[in-house]
Amino acid sequence: FSVRQTESAYRYRDIVVKKQDGFTHILLSTKSSENNTLNPEAMKEIQSAMATAASDDSKLVLLGAVGSIFCCGLDFLYFIRRLTDDRKKESIKMAETIRTFVNTFIQFRKPIVAAVNGPALGLGAALLPLCDVVWANEKAWFQTPYTFCGQTPDSCSSFTFPRIMGLAAANELLLGGRKLTAQEACSKGLVSQVLWPGTFTQEVMLRVKELVAVDPLVLQESKALMRNSSRGALEQANERECEALKRVWSSSQGTDSILQYLQRRTEFC
Amino acid sequence: FSVRQTESAYRYRDIVVKKQDGFTHILLSTKSSENNTLNPEAMKEIQSAMATAASDDSKLVLLGAVGSIFCCGLDFLYFIRRLTDDRKKESIKMAETIRTFVNTFIQFRKPIVAAVNGPALGLGAALLPLCDVVWANEKAWFQTPYTFCGQTPDSCSSFTFPRIMGLAAANELLLGGRKLTAQEACSKGLVSQVLWPGTFTQEVMLRVKELVAVDPLVLQESKALMRNSSRGALEQANERECEALKRVWSSSQGTDSILQYLQRRTEFC
Amino acid sequence: FSVRQTESAYRYRDIVVKKQDGFTHILLSTKSSENNTLNPEAMKEIQSAMATAASDDSKLVLLGAVGSIFCCGLDFLYFIRRLTDDRKKESIKMAETIRTFVNTFIQFRKPIVAAVNGPALGLGAALLPLCDVVWANEKAWFQTPYTFCGQTPDSCSSFTFPRIMGLAAANELLLGGRKLTAQEACSKGLVSQVLWPGTFTQEVMLRVKELVAVDPLVLQESKALMRNSSRGALEQANERECEALKRVWSSSQGTDSILQYLQRRTEFC
Repeated sequence: FSVRQTESAYRYRDIVVKKQDGFTHILLSTKSSENNTLNPEAMKEIQSAMATAASDDSKLVLLGAVGSIFCCGLDFLYFIRRLTDDRKKESIKMAETIRTFVNTFIQFRKPIVAAVNGPALGLGAALLPLCDVVWANEKAWFQTPYTFCGQTPDSCSSFTFPRIMGLAAANELLLGGRKLTAQEACSKGLVSQVLWPGTFTQEVMLRVKELVAVDPLVLQESKALMRNSSRGALEQANERECEALKRVWSSSQGTDSILQYLQRRTEFC
Repeated sequence: FSVRQTESAYRYRDIVVKKQDGFTHILLSTKSSENNTLNPEAMKEIQSAMATAASDDSKLVLLGAVGSIFCCGLDFLYFIRRLTDDRKKESIKMAETIRTFVNTFIQFRKPIVAAVNGPALGLGAALLPLCDVVWANEKAWFQTPYTFCGQTPDSCSSFTFPRIMGLAAANELLLGGRKLTAQEACSKGLVSQVLWPGTFTQEVMLRVKELVAVDPLVLQESKALMRNSSRGALEQANERECEALKRVWSSSQGTDSILQYLQRRTEFC
Repeated sequence: FSVRQTESAYRYRDIVVKKQDGFTHILLSTKSSENNTLNPEAMKEIQSAMATAASDDSKLVLLGAVGSIFCCGLDFLYFIRRLTDDRKKESIKMAETIRTFVNTFIQFRKPIVAAVNGPALGLGAALLPLCDVVWANEKAWFQTPYTFCGQTPDSCSSFTFPRIMGLAAANELLLGGRKLTAQEACSKGLVSQVLWPGTFTQEVMLRVKELVAVDPLVLQESKALMRNSSRGALEQANERECEALKRVWSSSQGTDSILQYLQRRTEFC
C-alpha cells in the first residue's frame, strides 16, 4: 500500500480508491448502505474520485467492487425516508443527485473500464453502457427491475438499451425486469467479455495493463471518436429521465411502490 | 363475453377486439382476405380499434391473431386488382394507406405488446419494431421477402432493422428475404422472448397482467422516454419508404413483379 | 474471358476487375504489397473500378479477393517509409488518402456485396459495415488491432461498430483488438451470413445472381432508403477519424508504434 492508497482509504467511506501505475481503481464497498446500493453520499464519493482521476496522470478508471456484489442500484432505504418526509422537495433533490452522477459518467474523457464481479441491478446495470469496456465475472447477473419499484429507467438506459439491443429486447429488461446471466448480457451487447470466476481479478488486471500500455493519445482520441458524437444525446436522455423520475416519485403511487418493493423483496439485493 | 365484446365483434369484420380489464386485445382474423393479409379495410379497422384504446382506460394494447398465422403482410390479391386498373393513381392510394397505418403505430402513446402466434411476413414482421414488447410462439417464423414481390421495405424496416441488428444482417432479411425462426429473430433483437407453443396464450396473458399491474404513470413515462426521441425520425422514414413504394408500384415492372409473385408462391402464405 | 476482362487485367496492378452479367466483380490481389494490404495505389485502383461500376450497367459491386486472404488493412511497410521521411506532411497525405477511399464506399449508390474469403484486418474489417451485404467464408476471421499499431479507428468503425453491437462489444474489438471467428462476427452483426468453405465461391455467385435478378429500381431505392439517412453522419465520422489519424501519426509515438508493430508481428498478416 502506498501512501496515497492509505490517504484515500482514509478519505472515503463508501468506496476504496487505489491509485495504481497508470490508472485509478475505484471499488464500491459501501458502509452507509447495504449491498453496494447508492445514496447521495456514495455517489458524491465516486464523483470526487473520478474528478481526481480525470485530472491526474491516470490513463483510465477501473470501476469494481469489494466482495461478491457489484452494485444493487439506488439505496431505496435512504430515499424512502426522505420521500416520506417531503415528497415533492425530496423527489426533485433525488433526481438532481442522479442527474449529476450520471453526467459524471457521460462527460468523463478517459476510458472507464467496469469489472462486474457480481450482481448489477437497476442503476448499477444501467450505468454499464456509459462505461467503455465491461468485463463480467461469469457469476455476475444483470437486472433492471424498474417497474417492480415503480420507477422509470435511469442512467440513460431508455436511450442506450434500445440502441444496443433493439427495443423489443430493451423493454424485456426495462419494463419486464428480466434477469440476464453474464453470458446473456454479453450476447445482448451489455458486456464486452465474460471471464471465469477463479481468475477474474487477475484477468481484469492483465487486460487493464494492456490498455494502460497503449499510447495515451490513442486511448484519448479513440474514446473521443466513439463518444463525442453521442454525448449531447446522452445528456438530453439523462435530463428527460430525471424529469420523469421527479414526476413519478412525487406522485403518491410512486412512493407507495418503493415501500411495497422494500417490503416484498426477499432476495439479498 | 361482456356487452362491449359483443358490440366489437359486431362492428369489425377483419379483427376481433376484446376490451379486457386494463388492456385492449386486438386479434387479426381477416374475413376479407386470406392468411391475415392486410387490405385497406383491415388496416382501417385496426386503426379504429387502436384509436378507441388510445382514449379509453386501456393501459396497453395486445396485438395478436386468431388461428395459426400472425400476419402475412399486404393483401396483394386486393392490391393487384387495383393496380392493374389504374397504376399511377392506385399506387399513390396504396402508399398513403400504408403511411397512415404505420403512423398509427409510430404515434401510439400506450405500450403495444405483440403476441406473434405464427408466421409474420412482410409488413406483418416489419411492424414488430414499432411495437414495444414482442413475444413469439416458438413455432412462429419471420420473413420480409420484399424483393421477391418487387417491393421496397415498409413499416420503417429500412430504418429500424439496421439499427437493431446492423446493416449486414438487415439486408440479409430485407434484400435477401431470409427466413428467421423465432429463436433467430430473438437473437437478432426483433423478438423480446420466445415462449413455448403449448402454453403460449397463457404465458402471454400472465405477462400482460404483470404489465397492466404496473403504475400507469410509469408505463406511460417509460414508453415516452424510449420512443419520443426517435418518433420524428420514424415518421420521416415512413414518409421516405412510402414515396419509394409509389415510384416502384407505379412502374410497369413493379406491377409485373407482384403478379409473378402471386403466380409463383406455392407456400401457404 | 471477355475482351473487357482482359482489358481490366491489363489496366490494374493490385486488383482484378471482372465485368460480369449485371455486376462488377472487384478482387483484391495486390502485387505492390503483401497480404492484400492497401497502399494509396491499391486504393486508387479500387476507387477507379468502383467509379466505372457506378456509371455502367452494373446493378451491384461484388468485392472479394484472390487467394486465401481478404484484406489485411493498411500497407504499413509503405506508410512507414513515408512517415519516417516527413512525418507531418505524410501523415496528412495518408489520412487524406484514407478519407477519400472511405468516402467512395459511403457515397456509392449501388449495393456493395462483400465476399470475405479469409482474414479481414484493420481497415479490411472496418470497411464491412459500409458494404450492404457481407458473406463470409467459415474460415475467415476478423480483427481490428488498432491499438497494437498505435492507431485510432478508421473506416467509420468508431461510428458503425458501437451502433451495430453496442459500445462494450465495439471497444472489445477497437481498443482490445479481439479476434472474431466468422460465426462470432455474424452474431455480432458484422456479417450477414457464414458460408461453408468448400462451396463458398459457388454459394456467393448463386446469391449474387439472385440479387442481380431483382428489379434494379427496387435495389436502388432499397439501398437509398437504408443508407441516405446516415450518409451525412458517416461522412462526418470519417472526417473526425481522419483528423485523429493525422494527430496520432504526426506524433513521434505514433510512428514508433507502427515500427514496433512491424517488428513484432510474426503472424502472416
